[in-house]
Amino acid sequence: MDNTGSYGDKPRVMSQESQVTSQGSSTIYRNIKTIDGARLGQIHTQRGIINTPAFIPVGTNATVKAMNQDELRELGAEIILANTYHLYLRPGHEVIKKVGGLHRFMNWQGPILTDSGGFQVFSLSPLRKITNEGVEFRSHLDGSTHFLTPEFVMEIQAVLGSDIVMAFDECTPYPATKEYALNSLKLTTDWAKRCKEWIHDARYKMQDKEIFIMNPASCVLHQSLFGIVQGGVYKDLRKQSVEELIEMDFDGYAIGGLSVGEPKELMYEIINYTTPLLPPDKPRYLMGIGDLVDVLTAVSVGIDMFDCVMPTRNARNGTLFTSEGRISIKREEFKADPEPLDPDCECYTCKNYSKAYLRHLFMNKEILSMRLNTLHNLHFYLSFFKKMREAIRDETFDNFKKEQTLILQNNFV
Amino acid sequence: MDNTGSYGDKPRVMSQESQVTSQGSSTIYRNIKTIDGARLGQIHTQRGIINTPAFIPVGTNATVKAMNQDELRELGAEIILANTYHLYLRPGHEVIKKVGGLHRFMNWQGPILTDSGGFQVFSLSPLRKITNEGVEFRSHLDGSTHFLTPEFVMEIQAVLGSDIVMAFDECTPYPATKEYALNSLKLTTDWAKRCKEWIHDARYKMQDKEIFIMNPASCVLHQSLFGIVQGGVYKDLRKQSVEELIEMDFDGYAIGGLSVGEPKELMYEIINYTTPLLPPDKPRYLMGIGDLVDVLTAVSVGIDMFDCVMPTRNARNGTLFTSEGRISIKREEFKADPEPLDPDCECYTCKNYSKAYLRHLFMNKEILSMRLNTLHNLHFYLSFFKKMREAIRDETFDNFKKEQTLILQNNFV
Repeated sequence: MDNTGSYGDKPRVMSQESQVTSQGSSTIYRNIKTIDGARLGQIHTQRGIINTPAFIPVGTNATVKAMNQDELRELGAEIILANTYHLYLRPGHEVIKKVGGLHRFMNWQGPILTDSGGFQVFSLSPLRKITNEGVEFRSHLDGSTHFLTPEFVMEIQAVLGSDIVMAFDECTPYPATKEYALNSLKLTTDWAKRCKEWIHDARYKMQDKEIFIMNPASCVLHQSLFGIVQGGVYKDLRKQSVEELIEMDFDGYAIGGLSVGEPKELMYEIINYTTPLLPPDKPRYLMGIGDLVDVLTAVSVGIDMFDCVMPTRNARNGTLFTSEGRISIKREEFKADPEPLDPDCECYTCKNYSKAYLRHLFMNKEILSMRLNTLHNLHFYLSFFKKMREAIRDETFDNFKKEQTLILQNNFV
Repeated sequence: MDNTGSYGDKPRVMSQESQVTSQGSSTIYRNIKTIDGARLGQIHTQRGIINTPAFIPVGTNATVKAMNQDELRELGAEIILANTYHLYLRPGHEVIKKVGGLHRFMNWQGPILTDSGGFQVFSLSPLRKITNEGVEFRSHLDGSTHFLTPEFVMEIQAVLGSDIVMAFDECTPYPATKEYALNSLKLTTDWAKRCKEWIHDARYKMQDKEIFIMNPASCVLHQSLFGIVQGGVYKDLRKQSVEELIEMDFDGYAIGGLSVGEPKELMYEIINYTTPLLPPDKPRYLMGIGDLVDVLTAVSVGIDMFDCVMPTRNARNGTLFTSEGRISIKREEFKADPEPLDPDCECYTCKNYSKAYLRHLFMNKEILSMRLNTLHNLHFYLSFFKKMREAIRDETFDNFKKEQTLILQNNFV
């Protein structure tokens, strides 16, 4: 694909800086190895390298709940996710602009991916009205009415200054008729095009000088735009969506609209079908899915990036991942257990605290409970992804997948 | 005072180890300097030195809320407080015994002081019945009925293995008639005597071998017992209480029953009157008072130790201490303020995060808000105490007190 060819009459003579950014973004995917579909790779961004398959901890409100940013770094997180919808509503993107962008606001210097808000409007807003122009919705915080368009969502993300920005999409619900899914897909394609055009115009014309001036280090010049594949559970629609997005040449491709209520087998079918259709030279991101059995399946067909609240939310609910399966820390049997949660685990929690103490903190709803549990679960997830990458490198991924799938089914909750 | 003389017919021939502990405890107060009543000193314990005047962060449930134990160490906390009442109810002292004592349970190797539970029964229990024998009360957690006696409270604290244990007392309420206060005082004296006898018996006879075997490092052999002065707002009763406690020769002396509703001037009067009555060679502890203006007043008459939830609880409510006074982080003016909370502050929060981010986290009730705020306020308190010690050392405490009293009255909440 020619990254500049699709812009027709746009200027071709550019400064050195523009030439770099004219490649579409400062994000480049480098494939290291592909074994039976599973991909080991790296995403190079201006703020650091992301080793893939990568897990992206979720920091909805510009904070990965219970963690500070140094802990995230020490845990080995190479990228985090923040939510456009939440940050637009509170504190507002204008606030973050004044403070100098999201990285400075939250004191995280690594790459940030921002979700476009499509999914949050779909799942959080008590009332929404979708038109071709955009989505009118009510805030889940105070009921106030807002209108998001593809252009506005891109503008918000430009102001936030995230490294990877997502196109605005309509998340097709499940179940949905094929007619609904098709219309939804058409809308998503149209919006993706408008997002692409907005960022293109902003890049070439530098029209939004204010953004550049306020937040030069993280302006649109350096942002990578990912398109989101929709199409519900209909394979032909997924194919159509992929083709329409590829035609527009995005910096990366996400699969959206899954894990919204459909049976697991159907979800796997769509992942298995859709992923290989995506361009091999671009990162592939399966949105919002983080059950590790699902992750293993998706990695085996070539997904590179995952985000999910599972490790962090489960931690706060007392469900912890161990090398022998998941357990609930509130179990009576741990009441006076002086042993660490997982003797094989090298995390701060397991090296310093007993199950008895973790249970006590949880039963008392102590803040330290949420901290220690979150630290442990994120460590488990990030280590799991590291092991997965090593298995692909060592060409033992198939075995790893089989072994881990068995262990992950152990549930002592 | 002869530390062994008061035990009459108790054995005088002891092993080397017993001889050390027969001195009353392994805690020794060393006075470095006293200027106009204000004392600079050190309390030497088997688990480390506590520089006085000392602030003791409150870890009610064996956790200083929102902090981990490494952070407490890094902040410079030299001792923390835990509550006998809370730990007895949950997880239960037997649980902590099985895990090897409170230090191991919570992974804090420094000194721990445990409150006796007297104040908590007074303030938390929905129903309590006081007899000479002890106190029957209902748990604030589940309404279950419990009976605490001086001996049982000592046993619980022995099992916990805290370094400084408090005698069981009745906290005289305010207002109280002189008759009530006198009866309450008599009870407190009687209970203090029973606590002293219990620990003496346990030390000499090693009668509670089980405690020793289960938790040898932190058994009664090494514990220091502090008596608590009561007497309400009646000076003659305070004097009587002091004299009766001194007669029994405690390892340290606490002033209890203040800040329970009496006017501040009256509280100051009692502190100013009572403190100089206490033996100069023992640590003096003003219980539960931590307003820094009160602290300055109390230090100026010779108090060495303070505990208070003020820095930690205020932090969680968004009230933060700065070098210019206290502020509420939720103020609208901080919405887009990129500056640190206090440019003069060296804490992790101020070195890494802006007021805008702190406000955002607070408005979203994020766990990181409670963490960063608590870290800052504890840093402020511990630094304040350090400066106070330096001022006594440099003989500038009087000026320090005047300057800080003015600043501390600035309230931008």
